[in-house]
Amino acid sequence: MQIVKPVFVVNKQRVKQNIDLMYLKAKKSNVNFRPHFKTHQSLQIASWFREKGVNSITVSSVEMAKYFAKYGWKDITIAFPTNILEMDEINKLNDQIDLNLLVESEDVAWFLDEKLKKPVNVWIKIDTGYGRTGIEWDNADQILQLCRTIRKSKKFNLTGLLTHSGHSYQVKGKEAILKIYRDTVKKMTQVRSQLSDQGISSMKISVGDTPTCSVVEDFSEVDEIRPGNFVFYDIMQLNIGSCREQDIAVAVVCPVVAKHPKRNELILYGGAVHFSKDYISDEYHEKVYGYVCELQENTWGSINRQNYLASISQEHGVVKATTDFFHRIQIGDLVAVLPAHSCLAMNLMKNDLMII
Amino acid sequence: MQIVKPVFVVNKQRVKQNIDLMYLKAKKSNVNFRPHFKTHQSLQIASWFREKGVNSITVSSVEMAKYFAKYGWKDITIAFPTNILEMDEINKLNDQIDLNLLVESEDVAWFLDEKLKKPVNVWIKIDTGYGRTGIEWDNADQILQLCRTIRKSKKFNLTGLLTHSGHSYQVKGKEAILKIYRDTVKKMTQVRSQLSDQGISSMKISVGDTPTCSVVEDFSEVDEIRPGNFVFYDIMQLNIGSCREQDIAVAVVCPVVAKHPKRNELILYGGAVHFSKDYISDEYHEKVYGYVCELQENTWGSINRQNYLASISQEHGVVKATTDFFHRIQIGDLVAVLPAHSCLAMNLMKNDLMII
Repeated sequence: MQIVKPVFVVNKQRVKQNIDLMYLKAKKSNVNFRPHFKTHQSLQIASWFREKGVNSITVSSVEMAKYFAKYGWKDITIAFPTNILEMDEINKLNDQIDLNLLVESEDVAWFLDEKLKKPVNVWIKIDTGYGRTGIEWDNADQILQLCRTIRKSKKFNLTGLLTHSGHSYQVKGKEAILKIYRDTVKKMTQVRSQLSDQGISSMKISVGDTPTCSVVEDFSEVDEIRPGNFVFYDIMQLNIGSCREQDIAVAVVCPVVAKHPKRNELILYGGAVHFSKDYISDEYHEKVYGYVCELQENTWGSINRQNYLASISQEHGVVKATTDFFHRIQIGDLVAVLPAHSCLAMNLMKNDLMII
Repeated sequence: MQIVKPVFVVNKQRVKQNIDLMYLKAKKSNVNFRPHFKTHQSLQIASWFREKGVNSITVSSVEMAKYFAKYGWKDITIAFPTNILEMDEINKLNDQIDLNLLVESEDVAWFLDEKLKKPVNVWIKIDTGYGRTGIEWDNADQILQLCRTIRKSKKFNLTGLLTHSGHSYQVKGKEAILKIYRDTVKKMTQVRSQLSDQGISSMKISVGDTPTCSVVEDFSEVDEIRPGNFVFYDIMQLNIGSCREQDIAVAVVCPVVAKHPKRNELILYGGAVHFSKDYISDEYHEKVYGYVCELQENTWGSINRQNYLASISQEHGVVKATTDFFHRIQIGDLVAVLPAHSCLAMNLMKNDLMII
């Protein structure tokens, strides 16, 4: 395939290595591996997980659950507060597969109890410090009350406690990430233990952000991990310290359409409709939408943080480059941009995919 | 249609008013109206322009040009530095329609001269201060040289000078926007006059950012306007001062899936895959991804800047709300989010559109 416009390039070997490594760590720790498929949303990449024997997956919407259910995935957690407006679709899904829902309020529990046609597996969503959603881990009364409500209903199999420690994205370095993991485990096991004291036992613990899952070796204190981004990684993970440069498995390959010698800037056909608008701040620059590397045969060259996507509009990308890089790249060349956030870039580029 | 997941709602009456107003201003000024269709990318909305008699349009990619050409649009400017890698498609398009390309370098001019199968209309892209791309307006030598190169070739009809004063997005208030427009016109007419002195005459001037086109009444000093966003507007334009609240014609309607009483936060099913990640800074908050309004029958209520989308991840939106708003909205309700940037939201929501 000749590339003439932005294409999302996936390095198959790196993806498979990333999958292998996470799979092996989960296996060694004897925990369930339930990768989050929102990162890739791809049947082909999903098949690489299946080859390893992975059968349980995570998604972030009813729509995504329907999609993967249609293609044979039978054990799916929708890791998103249950959207009661989609009750009809939830009942249909629950008829076809082992469906796992997240509940974090009595209101939703009562609604589901009334509307569910058959029992569903339920996880209580716990907030261990991220502050986005879920019941705060130290709100013991609310957690207990919700568990009791759920236990009373014949429509639920109360499965366990689930959290997403997304605050791991706000730190840097292995030690800081490990600290968040240890804190998460401590809080989750404390919640479980308090529930057990009240007669709510056998609660599983599910955790699942890519930074902690990438640096932790032994997950034996929990029952399940749900990382997603690790399959591709990106420069956000590199910046956090949860992956190495050689683990990044995707790049958006973009044509160079203009050059501005006075300011060493290249203009790419590649903008917000290809990358979304997530960015990182690195040690040199406030906003980096991607690092820009030379394209090499079936791969891309090393990162130089001085060659970066500094701003993007709908289709334009502005690359700030070193003098050397600027002069090596000509109009009509292709460059590889390692994106700030691979999940959002992939979501936009699903139909312009190239596997190498 | 019952809304159960995020839907991009278009208020037809407001869109038509926005189109009417801009059409009328262009007509009164006796300039060509070439609206930018990247904002809506919709055949139906395109048809509302056609009803007014609009026949010339702007797009931002070869792909988008192909799409609209396929559905009968015959006069298209691709307002993006010509991507020479798409030469085959450009030749096909140039065979079917009146195609207008942007050129800003000799390299591209020579390449096109060699590869074009028949003559194409060419505009020189001028940078009047935005600093993204184009030849700087005061680089008279380079502009003249490029015009001469283009004039020498039989493959080009040198049509004029084109600019996008995107720096109008960085100011606030009518006076500041008008200042940018006056500055743009001054620079563009000076370039045209210098070229005329050198024997390059009859050059048209095309301008086209939504902020200036919205506040200027008389365009008679230029030949063409190309605004795009004005068809929908959004809270970015409201924040700049280029539209009124009642001109905003689109909202992303989202289900409420969780509530956090301690911090007056609502969790929406509505995130970066629905809004992209553009934001504005208003007088109260550093990052606002959208203002959140109550849904009313076939419309939405007024903006209160204290009810806003404060952060988004892939599918989650976190709304910070007033106590009053927080208590009025329940889980399972729908709210209307006026997006920060309607073009990027529409690009993501093309398949989840509802016209009211």
